[in-house]
Amino acid sequence: MENTAINFRQKLGKFSERWSPKVIAQMNDYQFKLVKIQGEFVWHSHAETDDVFIVLEGAMSIELPGGRVDLKAGEMFVVPKGVEHKPVAENECKILLVEPVGTINTGDAGGALTAEDDVWI
Amino acid sequence: MENTAINFRQKLGKFSERWSPKVIAQMNDYQFKLVKIQGEFVWHSHAETDDVFIVLEGAMSIELPGGRVDLKAGEMFVVPKGVEHKPVAENECKILLVEPVGTINTGDAGGALTAEDDVWI
Repeated sequence: MENTAINFRQKLGKFSERWSPKVIAQMNDYQFKLVKIQGEFVWHSHAETDDVFIVLEGAMSIELPGGRVDLKAGEMFVVPKGVEHKPVAENECKILLVEPVGTINTGDAGGALTAEDDVWI
Repeated sequence: MENTAINFRQKLGKFSERWSPKVIAQMNDYQFKLVKIQGEFVWHSHAETDDVFIVLEGAMSIELPGGRVDLKAGEMFVVPKGVEHKPVAENECKILLVEPVGTINTGDAGGALTAEDDVWI
């Protein structure tokens, strides 16, 4: 165990690509991942797990079947498992995700925006 | 599903007692809990789970067998399961915890600081 705090801003400074989650910590079989987003992601769902978004900097929206939830820094949202959703951000937004180990960013959708899994920074 | 962001500051405004975690969200069988701390907690451990601390406002330390980790807003730390730890904060610090449903704040230690579990705000 390394007795050092994990600093979000320091970790965010280590990468610039978007839609590519980077793992910064693990709790049991869950991972905490930083991701930078801008533009529109793909509609997708995760059949096996809820999906947590915590906004650290900026603002984003999550489009959902029943409408849209707007999130800004200091806010979080839990997308229930199996629910289709599409993250979008007009300007770059920095997010902390909490997901089970092995969760793929595009879920059931796949495609070009699918990022490599389990990349630690 | 309520399509509304969970705002940490708004939720923190709903209680003032310290060392008493309040649940604000659930992901699968894990809960996100806000807690305000000041002073010294008890040494304790959680035999069954890692324990996540994310500092939202202020600063705190986690005393550990191998020393002490200092945390400030925008930083997190994962205490591995079974590891004794004691949270401390000179001034009030506001924290987001991520823990399995049913995790008791004082772990194996019990005692006067044991808070009611599963209190939602």
